[in-house]
Amino acid sequence: MEQHRVVIIGGGFGGLAVAKGLRDPAIAGTLIDRRNFHLFQPLLYQVATGGLSPANISAPLRSVLRRQKNVQVLLAKVVGIDTAAGQVQLEQGVLPFDTLIVAAGMRHHYFGHDDWARLAPGLKTIEEATEIRRRVLSAFEQAERETDPAAVRRWLTFVVIGGGPTGVELSGAIAELSRHTLRGNFRSIDPASAHVVLIEGNDRVLPPFPPKLSQKAQQSLERLGVEVRCGVRVTSIEADRVHLSHNAGSDQIATPNVFWAAGVQASPLGAAVAAATGAKLDRSGRVQVQPDCSIAGHPHIFVIGDLAALNDEHGQPLPGLAPVATQQGQYLARLLQRRLHGKETPPFRYVDRGSMATIGRASAVAQTGKLHFSGFLAWLAWLFIHVYFLIDFQNRMLVLFQWGWNYFTRNRSARLITGVDGMPPLLPQPADVTACDFPIPTAEQTAGKASDK
Amino acid sequence: MEQHRVVIIGGGFGGLAVAKGLRDPAIAGTLIDRRNFHLFQPLLYQVATGGLSPANISAPLRSVLRRQKNVQVLLAKVVGIDTAAGQVQLEQGVLPFDTLIVAAGMRHHYFGHDDWARLAPGLKTIEEATEIRRRVLSAFEQAERETDPAAVRRWLTFVVIGGGPTGVELSGAIAELSRHTLRGNFRSIDPASAHVVLIEGNDRVLPPFPPKLSQKAQQSLERLGVEVRCGVRVTSIEADRVHLSHNAGSDQIATPNVFWAAGVQASPLGAAVAAATGAKLDRSGRVQVQPDCSIAGHPHIFVIGDLAALNDEHGQPLPGLAPVATQQGQYLARLLQRRLHGKETPPFRYVDRGSMATIGRASAVAQTGKLHFSGFLAWLAWLFIHVYFLIDFQNRMLVLFQWGWNYFTRNRSARLITGVDGMPPLLPQPADVTACDFPIPTAEQTAGKASDK
Repeated sequence: MEQHRVVIIGGGFGGLAVAKGLRDPAIAGTLIDRRNFHLFQPLLYQVATGGLSPANISAPLRSVLRRQKNVQVLLAKVVGIDTAAGQVQLEQGVLPFDTLIVAAGMRHHYFGHDDWARLAPGLKTIEEATEIRRRVLSAFEQAERETDPAAVRRWLTFVVIGGGPTGVELSGAIAELSRHTLRGNFRSIDPASAHVVLIEGNDRVLPPFPPKLSQKAQQSLERLGVEVRCGVRVTSIEADRVHLSHNAGSDQIATPNVFWAAGVQASPLGAAVAAATGAKLDRSGRVQVQPDCSIAGHPHIFVIGDLAALNDEHGQPLPGLAPVATQQGQYLARLLQRRLHGKETPPFRYVDRGSMATIGRASAVAQTGKLHFSGFLAWLAWLFIHVYFLIDFQNRMLVLFQWGWNYFTRNRSARLITGVDGMPPLLPQPADVTACDFPIPTAEQTAGKASDK
Repeated sequence: MEQHRVVIIGGGFGGLAVAKGLRDPAIAGTLIDRRNFHLFQPLLYQVATGGLSPANISAPLRSVLRRQKNVQVLLAKVVGIDTAAGQVQLEQGVLPFDTLIVAAGMRHHYFGHDDWARLAPGLKTIEEATEIRRRVLSAFEQAERETDPAAVRRWLTFVVIGGGPTGVELSGAIAELSRHTLRGNFRSIDPASAHVVLIEGNDRVLPPFPPKLSQKAQQSLERLGVEVRCGVRVTSIEADRVHLSHNAGSDQIATPNVFWAAGVQASPLGAAVAAATGAKLDRSGRVQVQPDCSIAGHPHIFVIGDLAALNDEHGQPLPGLAPVATQQGQYLARLLQRRLHGKETPPFRYVDRGSMATIGRASAVAQTGKLHFSGFLAWLAWLFIHVYFLIDFQNRMLVLFQWGWNYFTRNRSARLITGVDGMPPLLPQPADVTACDFPIPTAEQTAGKASDK
């Protein structure tokens, strides 16, 4: 009997869940990704602040799927989809499919200001996380070597744009790093004098959470020394400052350290799917799918995860969260196997087990159903759920150990400035302060090819 | 009372040992390094083969020295030494010293073929280790996508040049990776068919060890599937092949995967010291020092570690090993503090506690005094000694845990292909096979500045 060929694009939470669920030997699965590892993105901010190593939150895709002989992994870049021929077009060659699942996720969106990407890196890839780590740690080094107090203050100012979970967690971790981890490390500066600012355009941080938890989160951040500014929007970013606008007018913050946790938009593959199938895209480029995650008129083409636009049973759009992607992936694996036996499957239903965000050490906010909680208990819950959902058992142990260690010593041992053969430049003199930028190209520039972000 | 200013260049084993030993508050120490962390180089090959994460073998210098209030860390690049003014010249500014200790170490030496650096990366920095990791893992990915058996064979051939400890350990680890770690990970290729070749110009591997241990090491390597070729020299390296010459004539190995563990030469700071003090350099650029590690005629300028050329009491040159550097550093810290109190210190004497090299899992060779041993016991000794000498307690635990894990599961979880936004290119068609090179610039090129290697 010929096998049913299932091609999955993307090894994130959604794509990996499908691949792991395809146990029927009548199916031949291919998981395509541009990277050789699954990345546990929710913990990327810990890599960016030296708490964990990149490998601790990654799992080689081949390793995860090595026992599943009916699934193969292909490192490749997808450039298009040919529905008529039933083929995925790769940068080199084509790959035929009977069923196609697109789970290519989202990327940063700088609201039309692509030049901001270089000035304010986001936090989606390992390379971006180590770049943020390099910038944060280098800023303290620069400050230590400065004599001009204004320059010291600039280097010790950190602005995080976007008050969603990533922005909250990143700003909290930078504050902790400066208040605790780096204590006693410097001789000229007091790292605890660092000024960490979190900018959110909405009227409160963590907008999807209940207002009370947003307030708790803000209080926890402020206790850590983060200045939380809500209702504030970024109007422009320069190499040495960020311009803001708000109800009371506009102002600016002088700093070269700006990090982006604000907008996301769909992978360009969303548009490729739309072009091939006639599917509609929403404002962020997400692909409108049917209740079973398939595309109208194309029952063998599915989109899941962040890239899919789908409403829940109350008509609310499903959020772009790991649990949604994972559940959709598991659902699809079940659906495909039932279909092989001629069985129907009821529409996808998201089971919301709650959401949470952590704020520094021993503090978090969480909601599950009607239950809202915060503080140490929420943090413990956050910790164990995140460890539990790490793919690799070894990584679970390594992360637990390092968190235990960090908890008691407040140390973060992965504080490496890497990616540079040498060291960062001194802050230029005030005269040419607009040139004050790190000389290191972004990962895209490094790769010597056009970015598709 | 004015403090005695001690400037230490280099945060490796030697420089860090001096800094840690300077406990006298009458001394103001400054440790200069271009990187913000101490690197445990002997384990770098484990990063290159996915067994450990970079942070596991690194310790932030500021963190190591945070309690030593009389020592500061300065991230800077030294460009020269002015003995008359008693100043170290930095890329930006100068730093005055009363005593200067140069511990800048060695770098790769391609025997005048600097263009080989790009084709055959060495293993001295974190960036080089992750680059080798990227090339090794990408080669298996390339092979998996190839249909031409000759191309598969090229990708699955790995050549390590240099049969010293680094070359032995790296080739053994690549063989283990292919034979065990990657088992079942691929669908088209058998990773165990990889051909790992170790090239050594001498007539045996590990030349400084007793011949019997060299033989044991070679047997262990061969048991792992490494082809050991002694008495063979590299005459040229191209993007897709390496040319060799030997007694029986010459031949070549077709592979893009060539790694360099052969020559080292002194840091350019050795020449700067010689220019400033009139000190003599040996053939590799090492600085000739007096029995107390000072430079003749300059009792306040010292060179230690790999950069120093010094004979032991039998007239034999001290080897470029971590224990020599560490002992010299400890010796100097003692000498400087005795000098403050007008006391003489007898010449430096290296206490040789032995040397060892590991060959894959559960095998090593070791000698201490007249005692030579090999196999599992030597491996256990190797393991505990290396863990013991890691600087950071947390890292000791992390490394022990990961080694224990790797030992029982043969897994290596840090198998990330990073540094590329995307994936490696396919092997080009045979017609343009000479262009078959990875498009990724070296760390030096990335930094956008001239390499000083």
